[in-house]
Amino acid sequence: MRYLLTTLLLLSAVALQAQNTVEKWGCAEITFTHVTSGNPFDVTLEATFTNGDKHLTVRGFYDGDNTYRIRFMPTEVGTWSYSTRSSARALNRQKGTIIATEPTEKNHGPVTTEGLGFRYADGTTYHPFGTTTYALSLFRPEIQEQTLQSLAKTGFNKTRFCILPKDYPTTHDAPTLFPFEMISKSVDAEGKTVYEWDFTRPNPTFFQNVDRRILDLQKLGIEADLILFHPYDKGVWGFDRMGEEFDRKYLEYLVARVGSYRNVWWSLANEWDLVRTKKYEDWKTLTEIVVKADPYRHLCSIHGGSAVYYDYHLPEYTHVSFQDEGPLYTMTAAGTMRQIFRKPVIADEIGYEGNTAMRWARWSPQFMTHLVMNGIMGGIYVTHGECYRDTSREDWVYWSDGSVLRGESWRRIAFLRKLVEEAPNPIRPADISRDEQTSTAGEGYFFVYLGQQILRDWVFNLPDSNSHFKRIQEGDHFRVEIINLWDMTIEECPTIFEATERINYRHYDKGHRMVQLPEAPYLLLRITKVAR
Amino acid sequence: MRYLLTTLLLLSAVALQAQNTVEKWGCAEITFTHVTSGNPFDVTLEATFTNGDKHLTVRGFYDGDNTYRIRFMPTEVGTWSYSTRSSARALNRQKGTIIATEPTEKNHGPVTTEGLGFRYADGTTYHPFGTTTYALSLFRPEIQEQTLQSLAKTGFNKTRFCILPKDYPTTHDAPTLFPFEMISKSVDAEGKTVYEWDFTRPNPTFFQNVDRRILDLQKLGIEADLILFHPYDKGVWGFDRMGEEFDRKYLEYLVARVGSYRNVWWSLANEWDLVRTKKYEDWKTLTEIVVKADPYRHLCSIHGGSAVYYDYHLPEYTHVSFQDEGPLYTMTAAGTMRQIFRKPVIADEIGYEGNTAMRWARWSPQFMTHLVMNGIMGGIYVTHGECYRDTSREDWVYWSDGSVLRGESWRRIAFLRKLVEEAPNPIRPADISRDEQTSTAGEGYFFVYLGQQILRDWVFNLPDSNSHFKRIQEGDHFRVEIINLWDMTIEECPTIFEATERINYRHYDKGHRMVQLPEAPYLLLRITKVAR
Repeated sequence: MRYLLTTLLLLSAVALQAQNTVEKWGCAEITFTHVTSGNPFDVTLEATFTNGDKHLTVRGFYDGDNTYRIRFMPTEVGTWSYSTRSSARALNRQKGTIIATEPTEKNHGPVTTEGLGFRYADGTTYHPFGTTTYALSLFRPEIQEQTLQSLAKTGFNKTRFCILPKDYPTTHDAPTLFPFEMISKSVDAEGKTVYEWDFTRPNPTFFQNVDRRILDLQKLGIEADLILFHPYDKGVWGFDRMGEEFDRKYLEYLVARVGSYRNVWWSLANEWDLVRTKKYEDWKTLTEIVVKADPYRHLCSIHGGSAVYYDYHLPEYTHVSFQDEGPLYTMTAAGTMRQIFRKPVIADEIGYEGNTAMRWARWSPQFMTHLVMNGIMGGIYVTHGECYRDTSREDWVYWSDGSVLRGESWRRIAFLRKLVEEAPNPIRPADISRDEQTSTAGEGYFFVYLGQQILRDWVFNLPDSNSHFKRIQEGDHFRVEIINLWDMTIEECPTIFEATERINYRHYDKGHRMVQLPEAPYLLLRITKVAR
Repeated sequence: MRYLLTTLLLLSAVALQAQNTVEKWGCAEITFTHVTSGNPFDVTLEATFTNGDKHLTVRGFYDGDNTYRIRFMPTEVGTWSYSTRSSARALNRQKGTIIATEPTEKNHGPVTTEGLGFRYADGTTYHPFGTTTYALSLFRPEIQEQTLQSLAKTGFNKTRFCILPKDYPTTHDAPTLFPFEMISKSVDAEGKTVYEWDFTRPNPTFFQNVDRRILDLQKLGIEADLILFHPYDKGVWGFDRMGEEFDRKYLEYLVARVGSYRNVWWSLANEWDLVRTKKYEDWKTLTEIVVKADPYRHLCSIHGGSAVYYDYHLPEYTHVSFQDEGPLYTMTAAGTMRQIFRKPVIADEIGYEGNTAMRWARWSPQFMTHLVMNGIMGGIYVTHGECYRDTSREDWVYWSDGSVLRGESWRRIAFLRKLVEEAPNPIRPADISRDEQTSTAGEGYFFVYLGQQILRDWVFNLPDSNSHFKRIQEGDHFRVEIINLWDMTIEECPTIFEATERINYRHYDKGHRMVQLPEAPYLLLRITKVAR
């Protein structure tokens, strides 16, 4: 009798709490109340959503306070009916409908790949301009808010951050929330704090904060590149050594919670090779768990230590996410990366702008901008990171963990993003491995990057090869804009140039005319065909 | 009765012609005489060779004149018994033994991979220093002989050449032999010569010449990197469009003939992407045919057009064989290639030293040497090519097709090979992506390449990182040899340097001493630890 009552209460709860109408690629949530005498996290729950011949199955999850939730992202407009399956009879065979409406203006859906680039589900091209805020959801709330405010002023549309707590010399802020229920905390004979966790009981408060931060980013138009494991625990808490069973449970719990948020990407690890508790092949297993649990097939990759590459050809990895500054030293080396993988490539760590004692974080803002530009010219994408120590604060935190931007490259990257988005096609080398400074974005649309040199003038010349786009024809006219990446200015060259026929693989101006340059480094020429 | 007689004759022929004793990794040949009324190439023939628990099955092949042969490379010393299977009853269930003796001094067996490098089957390290002689077995005999004589004076230990005839602007010498029986040759309405071939009948004379050239190379200690398909037919003869069935027969026939020669490597194609008659996936099928037919698992790769990479992660490919000069412009870019593939990498085409109008063949000998050096420093291998037109000859042929070396980089590459072979371990970047001029070959064994710069002196400094080898310790003493790659001289620096502790990721000399340099480019410093 008591059981029946609970069920009835539960059904009314469902009716009350389900958002029955949600926009396409929004997140519908169905809530159930259920009391169990066992571990509530052991209750299995999933639902299949059906709209015509489309079927999507998502897992539900326990969110504390006798509350179970199923989240669902409709991928089509229309009526989705659902039916649940659960090990708890009260949660089993629950049925209902979700109505998905047209998406609102800023909702383009999840990002997916397209050839060697990316697009949103609605077809809009997406060029990742990411940054790194490892501890975004881990520091105390005011720093989390600060980070989000800082992010809002930038041009970044992706950020990488860790789900699990991070212990690192640059992180002078201990986590206040933990992902699992703490059984005990004690100090051992050597004075080290020893934690004991119940890995069968995730901490809903911890994960609710993760949810919130992902949605905060979503409002800012920023993709959340979630780092699922990392080597920065080093046994302090032990979340890097939970073992196969609890790694799986953790991943499935997380995917159930946040997998229906459209701006989620999976990054299996940061510096996978430095996680001493997992072997090479383990990462394949962990990746398969995530991909299997995710019916939407969010973007998925894995990030290694410096110049350590994983098996990016595996079908689970939608794109390459590497750490290595080497391929960014020249646009040619970046272009090689584009050629090898047959997938989109993101250089997700190339060192950081900053002033640390550690060599991985002491690029000048100019050089950081230069590396990003080399990547863009080479047809790949590059993620920003910044590590300036603010010596005026005792509790200093680097931007790369989250807080406040102090550097200077981020503004240039925002400027660069606009240039990339204005181009008619994704940028790539015009004449791969042969021309080390010219890229193309289509017929009659070129970029020439003059890099760190300071030149007075530039003789108009472009390659005949033009990736797979139509080549220059004799008599084509071109305007040249002189873009100063550092000053973020665009100046038009007064001359209109007229292309010669192909001469030794290139086209020159018929009058051998030059572009007069301001004597500054980091100049980019945008050269576009004009009618004449 | 007649049948019985033939069988008896045949059996005695076997006894007469089998080389019953052969050295390990040599090639035993069993010969059968058999008359068939059908197409003798349609007779199937194979033999399984057994030595203890080792079993190897090889195909036999028809070699003209009613002669069938089975070739076999014993991979172990001892007695190998064999038994044949054939569609011709007279060739079926033939049995015998082959005695494999210890290999003679120069026979190290086939080359195989070891980590990111190579070794012979007997364990001897093999560093590929290859060249390119595309038409080695295709031009008239005197040019073939000239090529071999030229090769003998070099330090090359691998050469790439095409099995099938090649039509290319640089090839002013029509083939005199063809791989298949010609049915007809006529001139069409437009004056073009039209050939008709019987692809069911390979031409034994053509393939006997291939055999001979492989064995000639073997005597010179040179690996034969056989290019099985290429795009340089362009419909002239039609060997690039035989179709699936005949491609398979051709490959199986070739593997049956030459697969038991220890110095054979398979290169599925040169510039696979330019072969318009085959699709991306076709190359996988063709590769699988070769690997399946080859019981010895010779080295196997595929080579693409400029900066076009194939799926080198496939298990059929033992190593990467790419065409792209981009990754050789710096040792760092070459080092990235080493990191990505988790297999040995050979840059099998990086442009050619030469003076052609075509841009892919006009490197100076100095720059060619420089590119090879960058590859070596980056931990990969680089293949030489040369294209000088000898205008004094009417029937000019470039070295890259075969004939006579006229360039200058080949001597430097031979010099470089000695340096590489003297090193205790394969060379690789000491501090990947961070140090752009230092490589290591083990504990206390470094190379610093000063490249195209002309310097007066070099402040002694080496990275603390040393790949996975033991790092420098404070107080270690080092000698420095100044190697002039261009002049091929080695000069010892009189100073013995003493390492400081680690200072900002590097070790300096305690007295801040410098190496005085001759003012010349292409200097390589060999820095080795000495007892003190």
